[in-house]
Amino acid sequence: MKALVYHGPGQKTWEEKPTPTILKPTDAIIKILKTTICGTDLHIMKGDVPTVTDGRIIGHEGVGIIHEVGGSVNNFKKGDHVIISCITSCGKCEYCKKGMYSHCADGGWILGNMIDGTQAEYVRIPHADNSLYPIPAGADEEALVMLSDILPTGFECGVLNGQVSPGDTVAIVGAGPVGWAALLTAQFYSPAEIIMIDQDDNRLAVAKKFGATQLVNSATGNAVELVMGLTSGKGVDVAIEAVGVPATFEICQDIIAPGGHIANIGVHGKSVTLHLEKLWSSNVTITTRLVDTVTTPLLLKTVQSKKLEPKQLITHHFKLDQIVEAYETFGNAAKEKALKVILSS
Amino acid sequence: MKALVYHGPGQKTWEEKPTPTILKPTDAIIKILKTTICGTDLHIMKGDVPTVTDGRIIGHEGVGIIHEVGGSVNNFKKGDHVIISCITSCGKCEYCKKGMYSHCADGGWILGNMIDGTQAEYVRIPHADNSLYPIPAGADEEALVMLSDILPTGFECGVLNGQVSPGDTVAIVGAGPVGWAALLTAQFYSPAEIIMIDQDDNRLAVAKKFGATQLVNSATGNAVELVMGLTSGKGVDVAIEAVGVPATFEICQDIIAPGGHIANIGVHGKSVTLHLEKLWSSNVTITTRLVDTVTTPLLLKTVQSKKLEPKQLITHHFKLDQIVEAYETFGNAAKEKALKVILSS
Amino acid sequence: MKALVYHGPGQKTWEEKPTPTILKPTDAIIKILKTTICGTDLHIMKGDVPTVTDGRIIGHEGVGIIHEVGGSVNNFKKGDHVIISCITSCGKCEYCKKGMYSHCADGGWILGNMIDGTQAEYVRIPHADNSLYPIPAGADEEALVMLSDILPTGFECGVLNGQVSPGDTVAIVGAGPVGWAALLTAQFYSPAEIIMIDQDDNRLAVAKKFGATQLVNSATGNAVELVMGLTSGKGVDVAIEAVGVPATFEICQDIIAPGGHIANIGVHGKSVTLHLEKLWSSNVTITTRLVDTVTTPLLLKTVQSKKLEPKQLITHHFKLDQIVEAYETFGNAAKEKALKVILSS
Amino acid sequence: MKALVYHGPGQKTWEEKPTPTILKPTDAIIKILKTTICGTDLHIMKGDVPTVTDGRIIGHEGVGIIHEVGGSVNNFKKGDHVIISCITSCGKCEYCKKGMYSHCADGGWILGNMIDGTQAEYVRIPHADNSLYPIPAGADEEALVMLSDILPTGFECGVLNGQVSPGDTVAIVGAGPVGWAALLTAQFYSPAEIIMIDQDDNRLAVAKKFGATQLVNSATGNAVELVMGLTSGKGVDVAIEAVGVPATFEICQDIIAPGGHIANIGVHGKSVTLHLEKLWSSNVTITTRLVDTVTTPLLLKTVQSKKLEPKQLITHHFKLDQIVEAYETFGNAAKEKALKVILSS
Repeated sequence: MKALVYHGPGQKTWEEKPTPTILKPTDAIIKILKTTICGTDLHIMKGDVPTVTDGRIIGHEGVGIIHEVGGSVNNFKKGDHVIISCITSCGKCEYCKKGMYSHCADGGWILGNMIDGTQAEYVRIPHADNSLYPIPAGADEEALVMLSDILPTGFECGVLNGQVSPGDTVAIVGAGPVGWAALLTAQFYSPAEIIMIDQDDNRLAVAKKFGATQLVNSATGNAVELVMGLTSGKGVDVAIEAVGVPATFEICQDIIAPGGHIANIGVHGKSVTLHLEKLWSSNVTITTRLVDTVTTPLLLKTVQSKKLEPKQLITHHFKLDQIVEAYETFGNAAKEKALKVILSS
Repeated sequence: MKALVYHGPGQKTWEEKPTPTILKPTDAIIKILKTTICGTDLHIMKGDVPTVTDGRIIGHEGVGIIHEVGGSVNNFKKGDHVIISCITSCGKCEYCKKGMYSHCADGGWILGNMIDGTQAEYVRIPHADNSLYPIPAGADEEALVMLSDILPTGFECGVLNGQVSPGDTVAIVGAGPVGWAALLTAQFYSPAEIIMIDQDDNRLAVAKKFGATQLVNSATGNAVELVMGLTSGKGVDVAIEAVGVPATFEICQDIIAPGGHIANIGVHGKSVTLHLEKLWSSNVTITTRLVDTVTTPLLLKTVQSKKLEPKQLITHHFKLDQIVEAYETFGNAAKEKALKVILSS
Repeated sequence: MKALVYHGPGQKTWEEKPTPTILKPTDAIIKILKTTICGTDLHIMKGDVPTVTDGRIIGHEGVGIIHEVGGSVNNFKKGDHVIISCITSCGKCEYCKKGMYSHCADGGWILGNMIDGTQAEYVRIPHADNSLYPIPAGADEEALVMLSDILPTGFECGVLNGQVSPGDTVAIVGAGPVGWAALLTAQFYSPAEIIMIDQDDNRLAVAKKFGATQLVNSATGNAVELVMGLTSGKGVDVAIEAVGVPATFEICQDIIAPGGHIANIGVHGKSVTLHLEKLWSSNVTITTRLVDTVTTPLLLKTVQSKKLEPKQLITHHFKLDQIVEAYETFGNAAKEKALKVILSS
Repeated sequence: MKALVYHGPGQKTWEEKPTPTILKPTDAIIKILKTTICGTDLHIMKGDVPTVTDGRIIGHEGVGIIHEVGGSVNNFKKGDHVIISCITSCGKCEYCKKGMYSHCADGGWILGNMIDGTQAEYVRIPHADNSLYPIPAGADEEALVMLSDILPTGFECGVLNGQVSPGDTVAIVGAGPVGWAALLTAQFYSPAEIIMIDQDDNRLAVAKKFGATQLVNSATGNAVELVMGLTSGKGVDVAIEAVGVPATFEICQDIIAPGGHIANIGVHGKSVTLHLEKLWSSNVTITTRLVDTVTTPLLLKTVQSKKLEPKQLITHHFKLDQIVEAYETFGNAAKEKALKVILSS
């Protein structure tokens, strides 16, 4: 089969690789129908993710058809259409039983990382019963690619951890894919205001279209002052960090109201300063989380009932064998006005 | 009347002051029966608390008898015995209605801070109906002085925010009064292990007596390594910070298990480093809180039913007019082997 | 002043009564701007509510202007526009501190019941600071009359107690005002389906307009079979009882899925049969509640931000002195196609 | 092998049966070390449980040694000592993923019911990875038999569903094994009072020994009046029903305080009367549950740390082949002063 293979920083090729086979009775082999590229994949390609080594097939998102199942797989059979979760879950370990699939003793984020991934014609999915989700007949499969990673990430790490509630004032720092995912899913809970903060007016304009009620450009203005102005000096009930650098986490600390929640989604490469000299008495809660994808069934219901329309996130389409070109487009998202790209087999 | 008055850093005197009178119909005047000295009072005396100005009567803890009530006070009448909460709550503002009395629009921690306090023969308590608690007949009033501040602080900021649960492994960093308060009240929830971390073996020995199951001296050993050893490398479910310096907050971050809770109690004078480069994917929760004293009624029930024995915290007794001497003793707690001191009128 | 006075079953008159005056320093006198009639008022008029005695001014909903405040009222001053809560809360008792205002030791539902109510030119509101809510400048005051009772009732007793969540399937039994209130506020949480069950097609049509996704007429069909059909035999996650008779509570028990929530709103006049022989192993939760109106500030935010449009519930307008006529209209709601009526001074 | 076999109402024999073998790769075969008899087994023997048919091996509790595992079992290997859960969980279905193992699509309570059980020398356990729990080295295995069913049942259905909290007043109706299990595990949360209600003074005396603070004999006195007297007319915060008949559920309704929780554990054979005409406005919560055994790991930690001492529940010991005699003893528990019996291989 053909697959996108990582060969060290900056080196990737669409090349021939052996079609994967069942290694354990809990495995399934999936024929990829549609996949996408994640911001994390760009990091991998730069060499920022040391667990990814030369020869690895990249990608941890997608929908496909079951091609073959191992002897212990009960929930799926050949021909079923499925969503592939970016998180592999054994369903049997201490963490899986608690719903913390991200820390699964025999899974977690391994796809396109420690094992070969989904930017390929076929992929092997371990613990298939717990790591795949059935696609209802008639569903828009392209939209469901957004349920592999980005929507559960924005929802679980940002919205659920942030405890967004009706009437709340929410700020989301970072109008990129994961910030938009938080923005779309925050609206499940009817907050009064969603303030989007970013340095790029185009991205803020997208946020407006997706439901943000206030836009703050932190390049052209002082984000903290602007947010405090928008909230009559009270600050926000929920601040969602969707960038992953010290400056944006700093903004979250400066705008959070007493009793508020700071929900971190960003993948941070370095430490940040936590202003406990100010926050110790503020009754605030700060959370971190690697997406568990426990909410995939819930999100699927919201898509089926039109409460969530993931398709809005998709701007570009390619054939699977055009993936190198797709990386170019997604890698220049600002210039290309790209949100998410879809690759179809 | 006589009262302990702050006259700038290092300057305090037991001196004559006017007996307080009702200023608003919601006030009550309390004759102090018993009071105590808080670690915060020591900070005030050093000049560390800028809101406390020359001439202020110090103290925010105590039990007493209602001497006079304003016209709108319904819950109390002259002669009633009451616990004075360190937090004044109006019961009417947005924060009070949410149970966040610490951020009361017309209260919060004002006693012995922005208004005159309890280290005196009489004290005026604003919003008396919501800031005082009735003492049941026959209760041990000395023990109940511990319900003014220290026990709700350890319980709310440490134990409740940390979500201590049956079977948990809990670490408490800091074996001082507030750490002991967390230790005593953590046992309400039957954790499997409570690891106490401090640099002083005497304080650790007290912790042992109060129910700690493991002791770690962080002066003579590497606290992080020792805790990881005690937990088979897993770390702890709950880490309670009860000191307020960067080094102890650092320990909490290093020992917390995935999915765990770091509950800060410490009053921090400077910022700390938050290792989001490690914690971003750990599904951890970090909380801060100024005690709200919403749990005072609950704690009173646990004292009445002997689930909590606050008296253990009391080591020294003085008459109220010996308060300067009492400060000496409490200020040299390590040498004097003092936990909490009681001053009686 | 003029007021609507109850003189025993079936006897009411719009008559002269003394204008109320401040009795306690926590009271406020409100000049009524707009009020409405509740289904409970119809019950009162039939003589079904024994606590209401001859001579009582009826009504527990409305908006108005502060005419006079007692000496301890801090949150309001003469001229302020306010929402009157149907529940009086002292803010000082054990129940108020827990947010259970409905069981306030010196309040609860007393307005238009144990004390004179709002269907009058003026009304005295005890514990004004905790029982009134400020109306933001520019708000649509007519819409806010719906926040006195009906919307918090549907929201707290039905939606919050039922724990409606994104993706859920919800059934509401009873398409009357309180069922519609539950229907409108359930949508705060983005359930996938809301099935409305009633015996009247006109009321069901209103429900459709208000967001119900499925309608079930229990007069012309078997409601249980229809709901089970709509849910592939699974039943519903949340069943909200908004009628108050055994037959409708029976439906809720028959359609609830394992793990589901039955939230009772209905005012029941007699006991019901609980099928523990079937439900003991179903992991269900059944809740009851008299509205506490703790969510009034939250609801006000959702109205201000257009997440909730209470005005949809209003179909008829009268002058306050046409109230007897308004009762006629509301009392024949089906025939008159009346939802809620507004009476303006 | 030998096993206890049900042959219709009143007919049971200890007889030769084929030793079970692996049927699916997720199965394990366990050699029973210790088992016990449940009250449910007595009901089965009377013919009250229609799913149990002639030829069935009874029993759903026990500890044992892994004798053989199927090819997909990862958590266990031959020779491991395990607790057998009364609930079989596949770990893959919608309910298992929510922690509602009792409603597992391919499990639930099937052991000694729909498939052969543990009152035998060997037993086949489906979905072994999710239905067995490892026994730590050195643990008291006899005590751990109580973790198969009775302790998680009392804890999950009674204590967790009842939301027992520090300072609460709890009533438990029914001083039998499951009531005692609720009593022992309620103490994890430090309630102020636990009132035990039963008709048998011997059983109440056992409850006293196990930590009940008040005893109410409902045969010799009016239970409702006595409880209201003990609670100054307030009623209880939590009422746990551990019998399963209308009269005891009636007591729970009569003693529950506003805002309280009624947690049903009892297996009810007929419907009960729910007094919504009184309770509709009481803000109460009523729960039902078939034990999920999700708390087995938690309970194991509390046993290992001596917060829970299950051995107290064991009064009689037999060899496994004396099981018919053991049934005699347990079936006459009152006369024999039997709590739980242990059968050892």
